[in-house]
Amino acid sequence: MTSARGTLHVLNGPNLNLLGEREPHIYGADTLGDVEELARRTGSELGFDVECFQSNHEGALVDEIQRIRRTSVGVVINAGAYTHTSVAIRDALANLEAPFVEVHISNVHAREPFRHRSYLSDKAAAVIVGCGVQGYEFAVRRLDALVPGGEIAV
Amino acid sequence: MTSARGTLHVLNGPNLNLLGEREPHIYGADTLGDVEELARRTGSELGFDVECFQSNHEGALVDEIQRIRRTSVGVVINAGAYTHTSVAIRDALANLEAPFVEVHISNVHAREPFRHRSYLSDKAAAVIVGCGVQGYEFAVRRLDALVPGGEIAV
Amino acid sequence: MTSARGTLHVLNGPNLNLLGEREPHIYGADTLGDVEELARRTGSELGFDVECFQSNHEGALVDEIQRIRRTSVGVVINAGAYTHTSVAIRDALANLEAPFVEVHISNVHAREPFRHRSYLSDKAAAVIVGCGVQGYEFAVRRLDALVPGGEIAV
Amino acid sequence: MTSARGTLHVLNGPNLNLLGEREPHIYGADTLGDVEELARRTGSELGFDVECFQSNHEGALVDEIQRIRRTSVGVVINAGAYTHTSVAIRDALANLEAPFVEVHISNVHAREPFRHRSYLSDKAAAVIVGCGVQGYEFAVRRLDALVPGGEIAV
Amino acid sequence: MTSARGTLHVLNGPNLNLLGEREPHIYGADTLGDVEELARRTGSELGFDVECFQSNHEGALVDEIQRIRRTSVGVVINAGAYTHTSVAIRDALANLEAPFVEVHISNVHAREPFRHRSYLSDKAAAVIVGCGVQGYEFAVRRLDALVPGGEIAV
Amino acid sequence: MTSARGTLHVLNGPNLNLLGEREPHIYGADTLGDVEELARRTGSELGFDVECFQSNHEGALVDEIQRIRRTSVGVVINAGAYTHTSVAIRDALANLEAPFVEVHISNVHAREPFRHRSYLSDKAAAVIVGCGVQGYEFAVRRLDALVPGGEIAV
Amino acid sequence: MTSARGTLHVLNGPNLNLLGEREPHIYGADTLGDVEELARRTGSELGFDVECFQSNHEGALVDEIQRIRRTSVGVVINAGAYTHTSVAIRDALANLEAPFVEVHISNVHAREPFRHRSYLSDKAAAVIVGCGVQGYEFAVRRLDALVPGGEIAV
Amino acid sequence: MTSARGTLHVLNGPNLNLLGEREPHIYGADTLGDVEELARRTGSELGFDVECFQSNHEGALVDEIQRIRRTSVGVVINAGAYTHTSVAIRDALANLEAPFVEVHISNVHAREPFRHRSYLSDKAAAVIVGCGVQGYEFAVRRLDALVPGGEIAV
Amino acid sequence: MTSARGTLHVLNGPNLNLLGEREPHIYGADTLGDVEELARRTGSELGFDVECFQSNHEGALVDEIQRIRRTSVGVVINAGAYTHTSVAIRDALANLEAPFVEVHISNVHAREPFRHRSYLSDKAAAVIVGCGVQGYEFAVRRLDALVPGGEIAV
Amino acid sequence: MTSARGTLHVLNGPNLNLLGEREPHIYGADTLGDVEELARRTGSELGFDVECFQSNHEGALVDEIQRIRRTSVGVVINAGAYTHTSVAIRDALANLEAPFVEVHISNVHAREPFRHRSYLSDKAAAVIVGCGVQGYEFAVRRLDALVPGGEIAV
Amino acid sequence: MTSARGTLHVLNGPNLNLLGEREPHIYGADTLGDVEELARRTGSELGFDVECFQSNHEGALVDEIQRIRRTSVGVVINAGAYTHTSVAIRDALANLEAPFVEVHISNVHAREPFRHRSYLSDKAAAVIVGCGVQGYEFAVRRLDALVPGGEIAV
Amino acid sequence: MTSARGTLHVLNGPNLNLLGEREPHIYGADTLGDVEELARRTGSELGFDVECFQSNHEGALVDEIQRIRRTSVGVVINAGAYTHTSVAIRDALANLEAPFVEVHISNVHAREPFRHRSYLSDKAAAVIVGCGVQGYEFAVRRLDALVPGGEIAV
Repeated sequence: MTSARGTLHVLNGPNLNLLGEREPHIYGADTLGDVEELARRTGSELGFDVECFQSNHEGALVDEIQRIRRTSVGVVINAGAYTHTSVAIRDALANLEAPFVEVHISNVHAREPFRHRSYLSDKAAAVIVGCGVQGYEFAVRRLDALVPGGEIAV
Repeated sequence: MTSARGTLHVLNGPNLNLLGEREPHIYGADTLGDVEELARRTGSELGFDVECFQSNHEGALVDEIQRIRRTSVGVVINAGAYTHTSVAIRDALANLEAPFVEVHISNVHAREPFRHRSYLSDKAAAVIVGCGVQGYEFAVRRLDALVPGGEIAV
Repeated sequence: MTSARGTLHVLNGPNLNLLGEREPHIYGADTLGDVEELARRTGSELGFDVECFQSNHEGALVDEIQRIRRTSVGVVINAGAYTHTSVAIRDALANLEAPFVEVHISNVHAREPFRHRSYLSDKAAAVIVGCGVQGYEFAVRRLDALVPGGEIAV
Repeated sequence: MTSARGTLHVLNGPNLNLLGEREPHIYGADTLGDVEELARRTGSELGFDVECFQSNHEGALVDEIQRIRRTSVGVVINAGAYTHTSVAIRDALANLEAPFVEVHISNVHAREPFRHRSYLSDKAAAVIVGCGVQGYEFAVRRLDALVPGGEIAV
Repeated sequence: MTSARGTLHVLNGPNLNLLGEREPHIYGADTLGDVEELARRTGSELGFDVECFQSNHEGALVDEIQRIRRTSVGVVINAGAYTHTSVAIRDALANLEAPFVEVHISNVHAREPFRHRSYLSDKAAAVIVGCGVQGYEFAVRRLDALVPGGEIAV
Repeated sequence: MTSARGTLHVLNGPNLNLLGEREPHIYGADTLGDVEELARRTGSELGFDVECFQSNHEGALVDEIQRIRRTSVGVVINAGAYTHTSVAIRDALANLEAPFVEVHISNVHAREPFRHRSYLSDKAAAVIVGCGVQGYEFAVRRLDALVPGGEIAV
Repeated sequence: MTSARGTLHVLNGPNLNLLGEREPHIYGADTLGDVEELARRTGSELGFDVECFQSNHEGALVDEIQRIRRTSVGVVINAGAYTHTSVAIRDALANLEAPFVEVHISNVHAREPFRHRSYLSDKAAAVIVGCGVQGYEFAVRRLDALVPGGEIAV
Repeated sequence: MTSARGTLHVLNGPNLNLLGEREPHIYGADTLGDVEELARRTGSELGFDVECFQSNHEGALVDEIQRIRRTSVGVVINAGAYTHTSVAIRDALANLEAPFVEVHISNVHAREPFRHRSYLSDKAAAVIVGCGVQGYEFAVRRLDALVPGGEIAV
Repeated sequence: MTSARGTLHVLNGPNLNLLGEREPHIYGADTLGDVEELARRTGSELGFDVECFQSNHEGALVDEIQRIRRTSVGVVINAGAYTHTSVAIRDALANLEAPFVEVHISNVHAREPFRHRSYLSDKAAAVIVGCGVQGYEFAVRRLDALVPGGEIAV
Repeated sequence: MTSARGTLHVLNGPNLNLLGEREPHIYGADTLGDVEELARRTGSELGFDVECFQSNHEGALVDEIQRIRRTSVGVVINAGAYTHTSVAIRDALANLEAPFVEVHISNVHAREPFRHRSYLSDKAAAVIVGCGVQGYEFAVRRLDALVPGGEIAV
Repeated sequence: MTSARGTLHVLNGPNLNLLGEREPHIYGADTLGDVEELARRTGSELGFDVECFQSNHEGALVDEIQRIRRTSVGVVINAGAYTHTSVAIRDALANLEAPFVEVHISNVHAREPFRHRSYLSDKAAAVIVGCGVQGYEFAVRRLDALVPGGEIAV
Repeated sequence: MTSARGTLHVLNGPNLNLLGEREPHIYGADTLGDVEELARRTGSELGFDVECFQSNHEGALVDEIQRIRRTSVGVVINAGAYTHTSVAIRDALANLEAPFVEVHISNVHAREPFRHRSYLSDKAAAVIVGCGVQGYEFAVRRLDALVPGGEIAV
């Protein structure tokens, strides 16, 4: 049964399947499963279905964004390393009818200079950086505010 | 009576006193009073006192950060235009014993290039951009997670 | 008694209180009082009241611009050194309902490279450089042309 | 009969012959003829003859500047697009015995980045930008102040 | 007799009068006469008159563009070396009521870095590079598609 | 039955499968099917077979270019977003025995700065920009001119 | 049967499957098979198993690096063109428990400027450039020195 | 009673009121009071009065420099963070009749790149970096050498 | 009667017709006539005819270079300000069959930065800077060495 | 007695005489004597004499490279700090008839940015970085492959 | 007899042997002998022996720094022009067991831009600029504070 | 016996001792001996003694320039590779009482970008590039013109 307010999508890019294992001093101990569960639980509480997708392949992320471009009511994306190098994902996101929120678990501004440039941020509705996995919850809540029927809109 | 978990501080920089009136297509209709009320309500719900401060003066913001540097358990700061030009505020924040979260109401990445550089971000615990006034709520919730006695820590 | 066409404001930034004394080979022998008198006389002749303000404090200039943002019919501003470093003053000027004209007494293009960049120029109605104190007169005359009821408009 | 105070020259560069027709939302409805008439009228009132010249040819502008280099008592120049590309015009102006004032009708600082660089400004006595055709009047008045026998000099 | 669909103009800039003789390993053996004949033949076949003009003088190209600014239904321009240095030609083209197509015979992207920048491309309807003299034919065909009464429009 | 003059290949990169639907004010209403049909019809008329391929995957485009590297007599490629980021496609194209023509439907020079850089252009035989879907027809005709047995060669 | 000292992995990126055929004046006549055989023979002689993998897909290389991240005792990687553009592969390599050596067959420093930047080098244990296929042998020998039980360690 | 050789002024900028408490591993354990006492003692020994001033406000530092511009016989300034961002303080110092010496307690050259640029150094008589609080003593001794009546002058 | 060794051409660009009058502390007191006489005398002594040309028009210099491109045995060019901005003159010189020597009377390396870049130098046979008018004599002597029948060739 | 295959030369630049003592966590515990012994032993095994030279003087390294420019059959050079600053050593190496291999003991790509630029690499046959002293052995083996009579050549 | 607190070394680089004679308006009238005498006297007073060394040779300075690397208790270095170009001296100084203080007699920040970069400053304990020869005295006093047994340490 | 007009000095830098042998397609077949003989013969003819010096050592060139700084009446210097890297030689030349002329045998502007920058040119009286060994003759003749008693001075 579909939730009354439609489906949100949570997309994770390369190496995020290793979450919890990879450099835990940077990314924390939560796994990708935990992140997806948190997003689903938050969405559910707000009346949304949440679908999750992860891939290490730039093209696969483009394919997925195209697939949901008309049916999604909001997208949370942590494009990982492709944030800094992929014009193709930027272009795919430009086709979305729904807004998207960009998330980074760690504070990318405190890391290597090439992580300071994002091809996605100027097209995003919002950008949430360095909030750990909690950033996914905030992103879902922000989409809640942006989707008609939500309570806060700015 | 002081709340059990201590005091959070919400600092707003130049021109944010005009919130709600200034370029509402960018910043929304909420006033500074609304923002501060939202922060107070969120903090209170999580067991914190919340104190708010706004100034158009760089030096006054430095003074205030110094004043609270040992007593604050967490700071939310939207330094407005000083984000992009003030090393003095950066240095003052470096003296805080508590973590701070940087907030911008609008998506600064989609505006003039000189707004893409922040002197604060690499020192922040988190950066929340383009979430409207809801960003202040998220910032308080993030500090909740970072302060001992909070539930989520990453 | 208020003049029929409303009030113009003349704002001067840091170190301009020393005009006439400071580096007279660059800035000339006129004092700030002379400049303000010239602006008042020119405005009066065109049917305007003219109010003047000077401060060495960036925040004080922001405060003053905010104060007059709805009542001024035109602003002449020589932000001095803050021209090159202040995003806060730029943002405050963006809230003005009236147009503003940027003035520099000396030819900033013939001085140090960091004086070639202005945070204000792209938002100004006009920029007048190197005309000495006469630049203030021209600025008032330009505002006369821009304010409804003036004779020339381009 | 020559005016007592000598001859001022008003030089206009490429595409300014189309003034009034070309992009009127930027340049206004006045024609080159109107501009030249305004300059002549202003000069006459101050005791100057005013001669005008326009060309789309960089070399023709250089020729003209050379021709008047010893006889002109002041030059108003709007070099149009050559402002941003011509070292030859800069060098010709360096041979003038009289001062020159650079004028731009529109606010070049609010347009493409390549219009922000001028090869002329650091050699000019003054630069007047974004005052519409009124800028030519101001330029003549500034030369009046600089030419011996004028009343204001800074 | 004028063709039913109006007149296209083909403009060639500096050194293109030497076509066929100058560095034939880069530019091929066709002469300027051959190029102009090809453009005329293609235009005629599509119902256009074609007029051709070449000059080594930047100002003369500006003059010619101004002359045809209201009567041309489409312009093909190979501005040669002025492509990389002339803001004046850019400004003149901005006055055209008809669209223009930029052509380069050789592949400028494979030559010196200063040939990679064009002041014209962002204002052009299309840019055709490295197609040899055939590029002029393509440019005429593209204008055919853009001019009302043509068959393809994108 | 193979055509007498061999097979041309038309390669399209990421997001071009959405042609006609995606940002039609930029890319027009034709679909990828229309583009491929146009290329096939043009090729056929000139004595070529035309094979088409599209993928959102950088690696898949590399694979396809390798597969045809010895059998293709000419390649038309619109690498979409990978134009600006893929050295791998550049390297694969360097292995082609046949020439290739780079095509962009929209005028990339009038868009974001990161779309101005192409990793392919300096290796291409020709670059055709902003001609809409007609650009594919021109590219096929240019290859016709370059392939032995064609009529025009420069 | 597994070798006593564990398994080394040799990873090759895009277009390296064409080795021996592609631009042999740059890359030499040896094929990928020869390279892999050389690596296997060298490893075997030193007591290692050697597994080889090649892909033109960035995502597939990320997948493979993740798969071996805990079991490999050392990695030799020639990421080809992805060396210069892939942050994703960099991040995947950061998860390896074993050291990796970066190899380039040709002297990338003598080629195009964009080949001078590597996203991998500062994370590598060593970088071997321009040694032809012999570079793979050296890389295996270097890993031998770094792996406990080898004889030379620096 | 005024000392025979006049008054030296010691100015400290933002956050230096926290000296001794703030990042003691960088700035040492001495307080601002200790620094001022050291300067006073050194000056007294050389026949000078020493007055001290500290502010976190850029405008207040400008005001103070203006106040002493004619009466000070030498200035020691550690402008802290404003060193890197304040043209206003630079301009105020340019009005001093006496020479000034720039001091930094820590070695700014070994810190963030934005601390390598000083708006003050090229106008200073001398710059003393990384000598801890002893730098203030050296600065006073240098002024002693520069002020008529001192013993060493270079 | 033509000299046995053919004709050398001496070309001078914008503002050089004012030589001797313009900034004599930089360019010396010799006039263009003196320079041309010196070149003629030197050429004559070495068996050459010498023809001279000066223009302030970029296009006229291009025309002249084209006119002599096959008949000149050597060219001396001081392109003045066009040295730094003219790709068109560069392209025209590339069509010369004879070598050319670039001359500058003053030391351009000791002047404004934009005079340090020459579009001509990398195509020149030699560059002679800061030798005053004597530079023209040296240039003629260098061409003597390069033209078959001369005595020194390197 | 000279070895059948001729003499290889191993050159070490400034501070490498301190090897083993200087920053052993970066450079390892082997001394310059150990390195030279390793090179000699490897060369001898392959049929070469090996001569070694070290100097802290740029000029002395130039002198030595000149001395051996015709007699050496291959050079291994670790120019140390001069790698990043010496055009003179680059030019001397360009005179060598034999190929040279550039070696760095540590991974220069993981150190200060100014160590990323080498004046030697684009002229080298190969570059070996971060292999510790083993890099010298690899360099000798690479020269063995390049010198006629060696077994592997790529 | 050696002083109780050990030996300080004062090193001067190229052209400093001409001190007192060379550009005295910049460097003052004191000779190198005077400087060395001042350093010796100051050191002696504080309980140190002082040895001095000057060379115009980069390699000789490297040799000397190596010679004293274990025995010196502190180094004062004015590397003159090598400050801006020598990585070799930087590397040698990195081997010192004692701290070093960088001195420049003139204010290098007020001179040519290439004198603003120092390869030494970020490794120095302190940097003293523009204090004339007195800078050497300050440097010795700073080393006194840093060497155990001194009185002030920060 | 000393010549009546004093002694000129000809200084050659690194690798110029190999002239005639090194890359003769660039530098020609003349040896350093030939160059020095040419300079001596030209000087003698004009009434000068000529002394020559060559070294591969930067410090030795500095020593020599210091040695002759008061006695030379003019210096010809080809600093070879040190032209591009040596501030020390620049500083030494600044001490010369006589003027110096910079010579390069080949056209450095047509070579690698790092050869386009000279630390010497802005201090030179003249710069002569690409005239082969004849450049030394021209340099001597230019010094003749500059030295009192010569015939041409500009």
